Amino acid sequence: MANPLTPDVLVDPVELTRALVDIESVSRNEKRIADCVEEVLRQLPHLSVERFGHTLMARTELGRAQRVVLAGHLDTVPLNDNFPSTVVDDLIYGCGTSDMKSGVALALHLAATLPDPRFDLTYFFYEAEEIEGKYNGLKLVGDAHPEWLAADFAVLLEPTYGVVEAGCQGTLRVLVRTTGRRAHSARSWRGVNAIHAAGEALNRLQAYAPRTVTIDGCTYREGLNAVRIAGGVAGNVIPDACELEVNFRFAPDRDEKGALEHVLEVFEGYEVELTDSAPGALPGLTAAPAREFLAAVGAEPAAKLGWTDVARFASLGIPAMNYGPGDPLLAHAPDEHVEIGRIRDGAATLHRWLAPEGTQD
Amino acid sequence: MANPLTPDVLVDPVELTRALVDIESVSRNEKRIADCVEEVLRQLPHLSVERFGHTLMARTELGRAQRVVLAGHLDTVPLNDNFPSTVVDDLIYGCGTSDMKSGVALALHLAATLPDPRFDLTYFFYEAEEIEGKYNGLKLVGDAHPEWLAADFAVLLEPTYGVVEAGCQGTLRVLVRTTGRRAHSARSWRGVNAIHAAGEALNRLQAYAPRTVTIDGCTYREGLNAVRIAGGVAGNVIPDACELEVNFRFAPDRDEKGALEHVLEVFEGYEVELTDSAPGALPGLTAAPAREFLAAVGAEPAAKLGWTDVARFASLGIPAMNYGPGDPLLAHAPDEHVEIGRIRDGAATLHRWLAPEGTQD
Repeated sequence: MANPLTPDVLVDPVELTRALVDIESVSRNEKRIADCVEEVLRQLPHLSVERFGHTLMARTELGRAQRVVLAGHLDTVPLNDNFPSTVVDDLIYGCGTSDMKSGVALALHLAATLPDPRFDLTYFFYEAEEIEGKYNGLKLVGDAHPEWLAADFAVLLEPTYGVVEAGCQGTLRVLVRTTGRRAHSARSWRGVNAIHAAGEALNRLQAYAPRTVTIDGCTYREGLNAVRIAGGVAGNVIPDACELEVNFRFAPDRDEKGALEHVLEVFEGYEVELTDSAPGALPGLTAAPAREFLAAVGAEPAAKLGWTDVARFASLGIPAMNYGPGDPLLAHAPDEHVEIGRIRDGAATLHRWLAPEGTQD
Repeated sequence: MANPLTPDVLVDPVELTRALVDIESVSRNEKRIADCVEEVLRQLPHLSVERFGHTLMARTELGRAQRVVLAGHLDTVPLNDNFPSTVVDDLIYGCGTSDMKSGVALALHLAATLPDPRFDLTYFFYEAEEIEGKYNGLKLVGDAHPEWLAADFAVLLEPTYGVVEAGCQGTLRVLVRTTGRRAHSARSWRGVNAIHAAGEALNRLQAYAPRTVTIDGCTYREGLNAVRIAGGVAGNVIPDACELEVNFRFAPDRDEKGALEHVLEVFEGYEVELTDSAPGALPGLTAAPAREFLAAVGAEPAAKLGWTDVARFASLGIPAMNYGPGDPLLAHAPDEHVEIGRIRDGAATLHRWLAPEGTQD
């Protein structure tokens, strides 16, 4: 099958978005889109290209003082009667339009059209972001070839609706367990009710006042929430066990250890087991390329509230931000779409930032 | 197969217990034991006999001023490597020894050996007590032939280890529901956490001071307990629903309506749905046959804390008590057994109570 990513398409980020959307690439089915992108990259003489699985890395070697990463995942969530793309007025509809083939299109368009950027650039087009973390192409590259990730600053072209989202919250989950003693409920005083004992843990959650933390002008709102509760043996038995799952979303001024210590303090007196943890990422707005990026976008950054792959860069000491044309509220929605104007704005902004000095618009 | 309930066996309640235990009669398999019992009953000229399914009713028609029911179920829980019976010293081991073929033996022994009781007697040997209520032989007879149950007093020969347990607690179950609004847990302030909202309901349960009520010298301890809790959507979603199942065991001075009103009061402000309700039974110790029965046993009655078929009689206005030789703590246990001495004591006590005036031991 001919590669739809032709030179004519590559020069137009809007056409390129449609062409990428129309290559179906639900997670674990990224081979074809990776093949098409690889073919494009290998024809560009200013880039050296590596492939790892269905993840592509392409970089300039211009000897610039600083290196910037532009990264986007090639996969999408499952189709939902929204393939291939359709255009209605100035909107492109289809699976992946927002999350995040319009972002990938910006990076691939730059790779094809900007041979002499003012910073050295590393492009990542990676697989399997939408599924279990162990398949994530950026994670796999980081494990196998950490040197490929080396940079002074990174931009993930995830949907942010044209604003800059800096850093990200950390997240951890714990199980808070209560125990008791079974008894027939007709003789309940012989037992100890483990569900009743969970009430005090819920009180602490209900009374919890989450912090709001401002770092480099970005405001992070924390949250400590029960996400699941389960207990009970039978309709006539005093339950001897209850399990409460709690999710803590924490500002990036806490590391994972500090965040866990805080949760253990909140649930002092309870049995608490950590089941899941991922660090946050500081916004990192002070690096020179970051400051220039913000100047090019011309807007103050906002805090990223979810967890994204920026944390992978942050954990390597590389400041990273999210910036993309898609609307994050439309990600994974059946009516997912992207505004054509925002794709063009995004391309212009990145060009303004990355074009050689003296040549910017 | 010959009927093992021979005249020689019927005169000895201990031998009769063993013979009944050795007719396997796990619930829904009561045909053979019912056939054997029916054959015995129909040979007794002082009894008129009716059968409904595998439930037998046999009654004297002596024109006595008062009528007493003696009742026992013929079925057992599933066998558990405890069939047929074995005897070790003064203990008979086997499925149903305690619950409740030793009790059935007392009634059948009396039916066979006491042609002229001082009260008119109605014997019930019924099927399917150990399974879902809709199969219960006493319930089925009550629905189809309520006049068969007519009496002034009833004794269920359920295991009580030789004490009299009077009346029984009522029981009801409700679902207490909380609702909220889903949101991504990274933006928890946009949601409302339904699990947190359940905390206050658990506080009320934890703080609840159950009544202890004494009626006719019997002490009933109430209990209001969570028996199940469930809530949660996913590890990253603020839950919009939580469901708490609560069981209220109430003293028989409350009727079902009053008990529900009390529970609704406790959970004022919450959505509460009644899912299950059964009335309690007052001890009813004032009827003449009841007073004479207690005198024959020679001990104060205790409150029955679980729910038993005595409530079926109570709901018809018939005072009812539990009294049997088995140990209730051994019911349904693999090492279920009964003390031979308690069978003999029970037979002597019932004889003392029911033999014609002037002939008691």
